[in-house]
Amino acid sequence: MSKLSEMGEKEAVRRILAEIAEKESSNAIGPGDDAAAVDMGFVYLVATTDLIAQSTHVMPGMTDWQIGWTVAAVNFSDIAAMGAKPIGLLVSMGLPKEMPSESLDEIIRGILDCCECAGGEMLGGDTKESPELSLSGTALGTVAKKEILLRKGAKINDLLAVTGSLGLAAAGYYSIKNSLGEKRAEKALLEPKPRVKEGMALSASGVVTSCMDISDGLASSIYTLGEASKVSFEVNYIAIPVEKEVIAVARKVDVSPEELVLYYGGDYQLLFTLKPEGLSLLSSLLGNSFTVIGKARAASESILTKDSKTIPLENRGYEHFRQGKTA
Amino acid sequence: MSKLSEMGEKEAVRRILAEIAEKESSNAIGPGDDAAAVDMGFVYLVATTDLIAQSTHVMPGMTDWQIGWTVAAVNFSDIAAMGAKPIGLLVSMGLPKEMPSESLDEIIRGILDCCECAGGEMLGGDTKESPELSLSGTALGTVAKKEILLRKGAKINDLLAVTGSLGLAAAGYYSIKNSLGEKRAEKALLEPKPRVKEGMALSASGVVTSCMDISDGLASSIYTLGEASKVSFEVNYIAIPVEKEVIAVARKVDVSPEELVLYYGGDYQLLFTLKPEGLSLLSSLLGNSFTVIGKARAASESILTKDSKTIPLENRGYEHFRQGKTA
Repeated sequence: MSKLSEMGEKEAVRRILAEIAEKESSNAIGPGDDAAAVDMGFVYLVATTDLIAQSTHVMPGMTDWQIGWTVAAVNFSDIAAMGAKPIGLLVSMGLPKEMPSESLDEIIRGILDCCECAGGEMLGGDTKESPELSLSGTALGTVAKKEILLRKGAKINDLLAVTGSLGLAAAGYYSIKNSLGEKRAEKALLEPKPRVKEGMALSASGVVTSCMDISDGLASSIYTLGEASKVSFEVNYIAIPVEKEVIAVARKVDVSPEELVLYYGGDYQLLFTLKPEGLSLLSSLLGNSFTVIGKARAASESILTKDSKTIPLENRGYEHFRQGKTA
Repeated sequence: MSKLSEMGEKEAVRRILAEIAEKESSNAIGPGDDAAAVDMGFVYLVATTDLIAQSTHVMPGMTDWQIGWTVAAVNFSDIAAMGAKPIGLLVSMGLPKEMPSESLDEIIRGILDCCECAGGEMLGGDTKESPELSLSGTALGTVAKKEILLRKGAKINDLLAVTGSLGLAAAGYYSIKNSLGEKRAEKALLEPKPRVKEGMALSASGVVTSCMDISDGLASSIYTLGEASKVSFEVNYIAIPVEKEVIAVARKVDVSPEELVLYYGGDYQLLFTLKPEGLSLLSSLLGNSFTVIGKARAASESILTKDSKTIPLENRGYEHFRQGKTA
């Protein structure tokens, strides 16, 4: 009899997907993407759920407002990954009896502020007593049927790209842990920004062939995208946008910058592929808010080029349940 | 600084609603109903979220299958209360590390079986490590815009009615607690059935003026419906359908049957009002699966007639956070 700690979160999710797949789905795309997509006639209704809990997701010093913001942000990030326009959010809250009511007010304000930032509404919620704080969000959105972005769809020679920069949230994690005072990095970790506008622009462009959000780390996400599309990738490390705080924190805590950039989650950027001929169109739509970091190839393994050397890209990242997790 | 234990769940929810109401909602009905309703053009998208946690919602002896069934059922019940046709369900799971993977499989099977029963699909989920089991569901559905059922809408002299019978889940609670072996009552508590078909028939009838599900008890729900519609009710106790197991269990545990029928939750029946002239139409649509138990009146307080005496109906039921809760 295996326990969840041996099985890992991905296997737990795989089991759920296998059970769902057994029952033939009549009008839903997926499951297996960042969000489910339901055929509503003219559009897909996109829906996703994500949970954060005090003991596993709340950093010491995180404010109540940031906790509320985060549960909204991680859910809207999945909506963004499908290229959808947010409708709104529902949140179930497990609340400890002894929590001050002011904390609840601040959590709700954080949720509402993130909803406003993402262009969605707080649609409803539920509160129940619980020994520890847990917030479970469900975000809803819509996307024109032919514009939906899925994890599958990348073709060989498609370009691999990311929005924003990588590793800043990981640097924030180490900054808090070691009291380094890197406020911008800490804010990146504690107040992740869902890339809603970017996702909508990617889907509207018509040149993006696959997409997901990077919640569990870049390397892990590259493998997930590759598996869904039955391709692998070659990644040019030097092309990955990395901010100076990441280098500074990595040096101070004696961890390699690659570790923070490739194998940590929390940045909630979008990882996507595009047709090579679509690059100039996408640049005109998104400006410099994305960067090409590699391309799709046919081999079974993804590779990383760094300092003129090419090595296998390790398939690891942050995962719950498992021993030896990296964050 | 007040704590949630002093404030009670209803006040916690009221605060959330007040915060939401401050931000003017562009395309959502409510909040304040069993589910939120979003204008999708031809239909309302109806969405609701509800959480169950090990320590507060899971009865001793409840099977993993029943836990999964229940999180789906309580959510589909809210969809039913709006008169909507279910689309599907998303479930966020906080899972203890040491949980056997077979338990997770059984929970998922319970969820899937209830989805099938309700005519919805399992759309997606999320799993995270958590010190105690908590399952947060979000159910989605659609309803034609003019057919949506809300808590508000009851007019004076409208008839008050319920689907099914009342008190059986409460009898199940006492049967388990006192090892009385009343299996049918226990099943009513542990495997609540969302009244999806009934809700859809009520909305399609065109004669139902308000509706909600009875999750926290009949009396409490009657007050909630009355407040939303700015009416009160006179309730004829003898008209309320009560099964023989309820009487038998009440006698054995020395609790009055009224306590089980009026002030306990868990039956997940629908409470609704209808235009008096619509009664025969509704009877032809729903047969004997509903019963008129009273009517709306103008006074400020709801009253109960029993044994030729008329007394105030107490406004109490099951509520989380509060001390002295009844279940």
